[in-house]
Amino acid sequence: MNLINHQILLASRPQGEATVDNFKLVQAPVPTPDQLADGQVVVRHHYLSLDPYMRGRMNDSKSYAEPQPLNSVMLGGTVGEVVASKHPKFAVGDQVLGMGGWQEYAVVDAHVRGAIHKIDTTHIPLSAYLGSVGMPGVTGWYGLVKIINPKAGETVVVSAASGAVGSVVGQLAKARGCRVVGFAGGPDKCKYVVDELGFDACIDYKAHQDARSLYAALKEATPKGIDGYFENVGGAILDAVLLRMNAFGRIAMCGMIAGYNGEPLPLANPALILVNRLKIEGFIVSEHPEVWPEATNELGTLLATGKLKFRESVAKGIASAPEAFLGLLKGKNFGKQLVKLV
Amino acid sequence: MNLINHQILLASRPQGEATVDNFKLVQAPVPTPDQLADGQVVVRHHYLSLDPYMRGRMNDSKSYAEPQPLNSVMLGGTVGEVVASKHPKFAVGDQVLGMGGWQEYAVVDAHVRGAIHKIDTTHIPLSAYLGSVGMPGVTGWYGLVKIINPKAGETVVVSAASGAVGSVVGQLAKARGCRVVGFAGGPDKCKYVVDELGFDACIDYKAHQDARSLYAALKEATPKGIDGYFENVGGAILDAVLLRMNAFGRIAMCGMIAGYNGEPLPLANPALILVNRLKIEGFIVSEHPEVWPEATNELGTLLATGKLKFRESVAKGIASAPEAFLGLLKGKNFGKQLVKLV
Repeated sequence: MNLINHQILLASRPQGEATVDNFKLVQAPVPTPDQLADGQVVVRHHYLSLDPYMRGRMNDSKSYAEPQPLNSVMLGGTVGEVVASKHPKFAVGDQVLGMGGWQEYAVVDAHVRGAIHKIDTTHIPLSAYLGSVGMPGVTGWYGLVKIINPKAGETVVVSAASGAVGSVVGQLAKARGCRVVGFAGGPDKCKYVVDELGFDACIDYKAHQDARSLYAALKEATPKGIDGYFENVGGAILDAVLLRMNAFGRIAMCGMIAGYNGEPLPLANPALILVNRLKIEGFIVSEHPEVWPEATNELGTLLATGKLKFRESVAKGIASAPEAFLGLLKGKNFGKQLVKLV
Repeated sequence: MNLINHQILLASRPQGEATVDNFKLVQAPVPTPDQLADGQVVVRHHYLSLDPYMRGRMNDSKSYAEPQPLNSVMLGGTVGEVVASKHPKFAVGDQVLGMGGWQEYAVVDAHVRGAIHKIDTTHIPLSAYLGSVGMPGVTGWYGLVKIINPKAGETVVVSAASGAVGSVVGQLAKARGCRVVGFAGGPDKCKYVVDELGFDACIDYKAHQDARSLYAALKEATPKGIDGYFENVGGAILDAVLLRMNAFGRIAMCGMIAGYNGEPLPLANPALILVNRLKIEGFIVSEHPEVWPEATNELGTLLATGKLKFRESVAKGIASAPEAFLGLLKGKNFGKQLVKLV
């Protein structure tokens, strides 16, 4: 008898803001072991990762990735255990990281290079492979190390500082001797960013209703200006940061969540790029697989030794994924947003 | 008896658009040879260079350079001949390149490193040291070679294509096997850019009154998208270019003349930097003196062998400098804008 797989499909494309109606929960049978082709494995997902980039793929517009097809399972990173295998290198019980999507089980062609990876949870919790030691962590590492490349004593600013990516950026920058300032939404997140993650300061952007007030707070927190900025949000925060950038500053463009829902958000004063001889670089970590070993080695070591802290928001059950995802887009999560399935 | 030196001073800072009233013509005596200190030389200027960056220095705002002080001689590049010398390495009659400013004569402390350079006009005309083989040429070289770094077959776009910088960018890109598209103002300049400079296409931005029309023309001229963009103007052209950039495109930010007079010109859709993983870099060539020998070697060789073409707009007499400069800011010049003094 087949097990039942619950899946979330993309049912329709958002008109402006995404809503729960854009998603659909369906059931499908999980193949039995004898139904698998050679090389296939069945993975039971323990955690599903929710990430802002998924919002971009819901649109049918030019983006770095193909749009998510309608009526297919939402794509996403997953960790879980192998429950059936017709691949010699994967055994039942192996813990694996993959891109299994928003569903309880995934049938994976394990011979496809990179489709799933075995992971070791001796010193690193399973869920961290979707966060600080996974794609978000390597994203933060790449932007900080390869684009911002800060020197000790420089000032680094990161938006969405309590999140899966931002928290890694700030802690790596602190480890490199920088002054680190975060932006986060609300006093609780800001307190966490300073007290737990060790940032030098954190600005609650929700406490500032206009550009002048936001800029004043940023100026106070960055008395020597800003040398590196890791961008996760765009909009008003980016405008304020540009006004504080020092000559030869570097900006790693990782996300612009503020503009995902509708009209493009303009940049107020691009001439500052020239005036301050800035370098701005957009990147997507999946296009830089060559850094993965170096990045995960540093991140894993820091995490295993308690020097890289992280926090998770965990929704329960596959049916909770759409609402948890919409909350993530509005900053309702606190740390890495996961869905726990087992 | 002293010779008389005519000089243009910055009399006041512009409120919005610069006008002739911001400048003042004055006279001052030129020191006689016996009045010179050790190491000083007197240079009689033959040509004065007018460049868009000078507009930025007229403002009293944060910029990459100190603002031009009020009531001092307008700063600027000059070529001329030594007419008196108390420096052992400079003799009367030597031709030199310097930053003598908007005046007929300059007294130069020749022992200050880089204050003046001897130049050789055997194969290169004197005025070209202010253009294609001088600061504008090296500016174009740096942005193209060090930032855009195009491969054969890629598409490179440059704004202000008939100007001192843009003309060099395009010809260097053609020499590297690229498809090259320029923007210029008016049919005469566009015809020159294609017929004389050898660009593949040139878009007359004045013939397009709205963003849609400008974009359509750019799309037609860049069927494979844009891999490198050399920015001299900002504003609507930059917005159109961003929409045509290919993944991993590079933008060298050299000037944003469209925004020099007033309110900052916003960038419509900065999220495209992320979507297309662009690299944008602002630069000022004077901060990269290490490239000068390599750049001038290539530029000088191309120019001396007739492979680097250029055009000049020449105003006559020091009193004509303010009006010629204001015309330059409006694109009234055709090629490198000079003032001929001898």
